Amino acid sequence: MVIDVKDLYEKLEEYKGKDITLQGWVRNHRKQKEFGFIDFHDGTYFKSVQVVYDNKLSDFEEIQKLRVGSSIEVLGTVMDSPAKGQEFEVHLKEWKLFGDSPEDYPIQPKRHTREFLREQAYLRPRTNLFGAIFRVRSVAAMAIHEYFQSHNYVYVHTPLITTADCEGSDQMFKITTFDFNHLPMKDGKVDMSKDLFGKTAFVTGTGQLHGEAFAMAYKKIYTFGPTFRTEKSNTKTHSNEFWMIEPEIAFCDLEGLMDIEEDMLKSVVQRVLDKCPLEIDFFDQFVEKGLKEKLTKLVKAKFTRISYHDAIDILKKADVKWEFTPSYDDDIAKEHEKYITEYFNGPVFITNWPKDIKTWYMKVNDDGKTVAAVDLEVPGAGELMGGSQREEDYDKLLKRIKEMNVDQDTVDWFCNLRKFGGCYHSGFGMGFERLLIYLTGVDNIRDVIPFPRTPNNCDY
Amino acid sequence: MVIDVKDLYEKLEEYKGKDITLQGWVRNHRKQKEFGFIDFHDGTYFKSVQVVYDNKLSDFEEIQKLRVGSSIEVLGTVMDSPAKGQEFEVHLKEWKLFGDSPEDYPIQPKRHTREFLREQAYLRPRTNLFGAIFRVRSVAAMAIHEYFQSHNYVYVHTPLITTADCEGSDQMFKITTFDFNHLPMKDGKVDMSKDLFGKTAFVTGTGQLHGEAFAMAYKKIYTFGPTFRTEKSNTKTHSNEFWMIEPEIAFCDLEGLMDIEEDMLKSVVQRVLDKCPLEIDFFDQFVEKGLKEKLTKLVKAKFTRISYHDAIDILKKADVKWEFTPSYDDDIAKEHEKYITEYFNGPVFITNWPKDIKTWYMKVNDDGKTVAAVDLEVPGAGELMGGSQREEDYDKLLKRIKEMNVDQDTVDWFCNLRKFGGCYHSGFGMGFERLLIYLTGVDNIRDVIPFPRTPNNCDY
Repeated sequence: MVIDVKDLYEKLEEYKGKDITLQGWVRNHRKQKEFGFIDFHDGTYFKSVQVVYDNKLSDFEEIQKLRVGSSIEVLGTVMDSPAKGQEFEVHLKEWKLFGDSPEDYPIQPKRHTREFLREQAYLRPRTNLFGAIFRVRSVAAMAIHEYFQSHNYVYVHTPLITTADCEGSDQMFKITTFDFNHLPMKDGKVDMSKDLFGKTAFVTGTGQLHGEAFAMAYKKIYTFGPTFRTEKSNTKTHSNEFWMIEPEIAFCDLEGLMDIEEDMLKSVVQRVLDKCPLEIDFFDQFVEKGLKEKLTKLVKAKFTRISYHDAIDILKKADVKWEFTPSYDDDIAKEHEKYITEYFNGPVFITNWPKDIKTWYMKVNDDGKTVAAVDLEVPGAGELMGGSQREEDYDKLLKRIKEMNVDQDTVDWFCNLRKFGGCYHSGFGMGFERLLIYLTGVDNIRDVIPFPRTPNNCDY
Repeated sequence: MVIDVKDLYEKLEEYKGKDITLQGWVRNHRKQKEFGFIDFHDGTYFKSVQVVYDNKLSDFEEIQKLRVGSSIEVLGTVMDSPAKGQEFEVHLKEWKLFGDSPEDYPIQPKRHTREFLREQAYLRPRTNLFGAIFRVRSVAAMAIHEYFQSHNYVYVHTPLITTADCEGSDQMFKITTFDFNHLPMKDGKVDMSKDLFGKTAFVTGTGQLHGEAFAMAYKKIYTFGPTFRTEKSNTKTHSNEFWMIEPEIAFCDLEGLMDIEEDMLKSVVQRVLDKCPLEIDFFDQFVEKGLKEKLTKLVKAKFTRISYHDAIDILKKADVKWEFTPSYDDDIAKEHEKYITEYFNGPVFITNWPKDIKTWYMKVNDDGKTVAAVDLEVPGAGELMGGSQREEDYDKLLKRIKEMNVDQDTVDWFCNLRKFGGCYHSGFGMGFERLLIYLTGVDNIRDVIPFPRTPNNCDY
């Protein structure tokens, strides 16, 4: 029977002395005159298996021709290994070649730059680094589901196609079935009523509004899906397609929201530490020194909670020559985020932001100047989550909608949630890639997304 | 401390005789002269809690004004209930109103048609039916993740934005940042090089091609995300946005694929039976008589496996006046699917389809006429999954690409997977809504998607 390398490592004692069959790929192949060592990998586990053969095998010469990247099946006996630090090896008895790999196979057993591997997006998960990154991505995604499901949250698939332009339509992609070179016209303008949905439609950058509707039915919900932004930025943290988690919780205020954010993050980080110890060790050694300690510390830390006002006070008092002068009315810059997390030596919740730099559905505080919003700043990753208590008062919400020129018609139903058994409630959004950057130490969003989409870059 | 209704039901014995606080909504309110009964619901559980109060409470008259749909907090004592069939009740001590609900609140405690509730998409999860449907959706999604993760699959977020038109660009939405009324022109045509990605981009209907690249690294992967189709059909089974699961497995042939499909489906159905017994009972009683038995039977069934040729034989021999005459070369119709599943009285895998009605990447069988494709037909839901062994031979794949006029440039990297350690491999796709229709007995796709998108219908 064919087994996974993961199962072999996990139940090694059961398999010792027995014959097993493995299917996978040649990662490396060291040939000697009388022996050979195949570094065999099947992708189910971070580690390879050392497959050993000698010239007593009748097809010894054929085996020695096996090239890096080839797909093979091996039948062999699991034996203790004489090699230091190696738990076992497999003594080859029979083998089969499925698919050869040419000499110019791009993924050779040597150090490739991440830039080069980005150009080989369809092959890069075969490397140690990207193999580890995308396994952590999978495990972290599952950890998020596990957290919310075990806390009675309902997972909601909010729609991606929307006709509401409440986020500002210039930040959203339009979606259409039109042929651009044969557009239907009416009165000198493109006749959008002829498009599939009968009007202009977008793909959305948030599921929050729809999430709220479901939170008013299930009390606790979360979304986890792709989102889109049209930003034309080529930075390490921007991508036009990325995944977001957006929980929304009824009967929850800002303090309660921070409790949830903190608990969730710790749970997910702990899960990744438990399930991917080899990957984390690898990142710690080759990507970000101290990563493992950083993550372990986070799980035990008590996150600081300070107001935006107090954070600005700290920045103003700091003996630092800022590029951007801290101000009680403006947004804070990356340099400020960094200072604050270093100042408190850990994650910091910053609460009660100036209302003018935040969005329309956040609850305005009694001071009339700030909103009950909270950003979580994390050492090394900056803003990891952003959330707020939502405005639950119908009239106040409408006032904000008018002040901020939101198209009321498109969010009418959302406002109505306040009329039909509305309650105080809160929610947050976490960019999944931001979390992965934090978990892996890899600092470019292009390296934590399987096939990243950025301006002028949509290959594969 | 505030607790969830779900936890109250699950740990009822612990709470009996104790005071608890609940937060949620008034589902119904029966008032008598000296007593009142609030049907209290917080969305975490299918069942409500009966909250009982009497005129000994000083604010008795105020309580009696509580309207259906209002959001409240109640503090009370968990007591045995004198009412037959009711496990307990909560004797009210204190309460708070958060949000009132007007007399014309659309979700009144009476029977509403599904058509009416579709018009109230943002409120319908507050009903018994839709509350149950979307909880099953959440639980089934989790069950799918649990199945694949526990079998060493890696969850891959394949990109939605793509510039490859291999599915036929007429079936895909275009995505753009252009203002339709001010398009950049060049040589009398729209200059697509000016768009964000420098060329025409689409949102995709499949993650399969990208999934294969990851299967060649991890051996076993799955995707689970939204997909889009531009079909202008207004049927019960079509939607322009829906969710798909697409596993892809290296070293797996058609027989192996069927084993996985069968095992996965049984596991997910069993999980839903275990986790949502009340919801399933409800569907069984009010939506599809015999649903529970159908699902229980499926878990124990051995799925039939027959070839397409043999299926057509059966159809031809059948004493039925077909609307569409069964043919060895054409696709089968819904009436045929139905007959076949009834003939075998259970799920049926139909294998080895005529190559001309299937797509280009499927493995052509030795007969040169059929492909190693398999559809799973399920009683009551029709085609639930579609999969195939993939063509692993580079030259044969290229031949098919030319025959079927696929734009080779856009799938070049995909073909290269055959050159670099390719192997026999298979995969399938399951429409998540198709599964939900099967699990709930609800027969319209619009009723299993939180906010469905269909032609001329993109409200909310």
